[in-house]
Amino acid sequence: LDCLKTVAIMGVGLIGGSIGWGLRSRGLAQQVVGLGRDPRRLAEAVERGLIDRGTTEPAAALAEAEVVVVCTPVDRIPGDVRRAAELSPAGVLVMDVGSTKRQIVEAVERGPAAGVFVGAHPLAGSELSGAAHARKDLFEDRVCVLTPTLRTTPDRLARAREFWANLGSRVLETTPAEHDEIVAFTSHLPHAVAAALAASVPPPWHPFTAGASRDGTRVARAETELWTAIFQENRGPLLRALGAFQDQLARFKYAIMTDDPAAIQAWWNEARRRRLAFESQATKGAPDG
Amino acid sequence: LDCLKTVAIMGVGLIGGSIGWGLRSRGLAQQVVGLGRDPRRLAEAVERGLIDRGTTEPAAALAEAEVVVVCTPVDRIPGDVRRAAELSPAGVLVMDVGSTKRQIVEAVERGPAAGVFVGAHPLAGSELSGAAHARKDLFEDRVCVLTPTLRTTPDRLARAREFWANLGSRVLETTPAEHDEIVAFTSHLPHAVAAALAASVPPPWHPFTAGASRDGTRVARAETELWTAIFQENRGPLLRALGAFQDQLARFKYAIMTDDPAAIQAWWNEARRRRLAFESQATKGAPDG
Repeated sequence: LDCLKTVAIMGVGLIGGSIGWGLRSRGLAQQVVGLGRDPRRLAEAVERGLIDRGTTEPAAALAEAEVVVVCTPVDRIPGDVRRAAELSPAGVLVMDVGSTKRQIVEAVERGPAAGVFVGAHPLAGSELSGAAHARKDLFEDRVCVLTPTLRTTPDRLARAREFWANLGSRVLETTPAEHDEIVAFTSHLPHAVAAALAASVPPPWHPFTAGASRDGTRVARAETELWTAIFQENRGPLLRALGAFQDQLARFKYAIMTDDPAAIQAWWNEARRRRLAFESQATKGAPDG
Repeated sequence: LDCLKTVAIMGVGLIGGSIGWGLRSRGLAQQVVGLGRDPRRLAEAVERGLIDRGTTEPAAALAEAEVVVVCTPVDRIPGDVRRAAELSPAGVLVMDVGSTKRQIVEAVERGPAAGVFVGAHPLAGSELSGAAHARKDLFEDRVCVLTPTLRTTPDRLARAREFWANLGSRVLETTPAEHDEIVAFTSHLPHAVAAALAASVPPPWHPFTAGASRDGTRVARAETELWTAIFQENRGPLLRALGAFQDQLARFKYAIMTDDPAAIQAWWNEARRRRLAFESQATKGAPDG
């Protein structure tokens, strides 16, 4: 493995903290610098071994960065990527880890950061946020989606692939628009459905709840601001995913209304086949983003 | 603890097998007899220690039973309860473990089994079925709902409470109709939602799926026949639960369509509060029924 000299992480939360810890524990970087807004939290991150040092000064964090990973909320990413490209050495690779890609990549590519940027989305988030939940193995055996475009330089793309592969991830590539269409179904829709399910059960009935409901509502505790921004960034694909889901549920409801066991069975069998197909090729357990 | 003499289990699958194993491992019964249709499977259950002996002859299983637990699919329960009451000694307590209660209890109480019967539903099922997945601690720290009526004798109700408490469960009581209304929201709706979610994601996109989708579709692999029967038995409450869920999802979709961050946040916050309230008082992890 080639060891990176300095990696800068903008936003040391669950994802940023786990990247830092993963790089350090695998000996992938000589120095990991965390850029944040709260000196106390940065000191905690240093103490816990997630980063080597922390600073609230962008210039201090970025001046020597060989790689910058922008781990801020989706609505702040384009501005942060632009700043990272301006304040870092010319050879820098800048990546983000946002849960949406089309608007972010378009915004970045309207400016001069295009030549150093590769959009990335590690599918490794969680309903738990913050550096306190960081894990050094968060990206092992997980998928990381890269979204190169015609403006992405082959050199930066190769370095981005290597970066995530070295953290243990399986790297997949799509266009930014394909990425957003896919994750609308595989991540954003499941989050909306979990919240609708949580909101449907009257609290006095909570003691009667077991596994299906518990698992089905887990991600409904995710952060409001984070997810509002994600949903807003991905409105079009999300509306299509919601429509497809509503159609499925309407088919089931019709089979129940008409008391048609053959229709219920056919519907359930189709869903069951999909779930079994998913299990047979799924990557390893746990959280989402 | 008073040790029961003979407990008969009709249907030695996940639930029946776990009851037998739980009784035996806790020394709660001198003898557990399994009644089934497949001699080979019964022999396996004996070998694995779930039951003391197995038989395909109802009379042989029931002749000395002090307690009979009917663990067959919901559409077979009323007939099996009737048979159990006929073939067992006069003092017998007969319980079922069906996921619906109103139709079952009504059917049983139209006949002479009413005097020995108590409807029960341990909230401990799973998307995995069959005795192979039985666990001796399946009912520990889980809720078991009993659904006594005016026709239930106090003696049988007290014995039913003791039976489940001895297996480690927390016993709650509702009317049969209340039970069905509640589990339509806390169990049947989450199963329907999981299946609709599984059916909504095109298989080529499965590699892009992480935790929210994996957890949200887990129970979609449950048995088709079992769940078709449950849905059919609980049509009225299930349609109300589906309606409540569809209303929640429609509110979210409208907030996305109108691109209204305040409405998205308010909706998500309400769901998030519900989920956090649930977590703060939930019983321990795992499966559902």
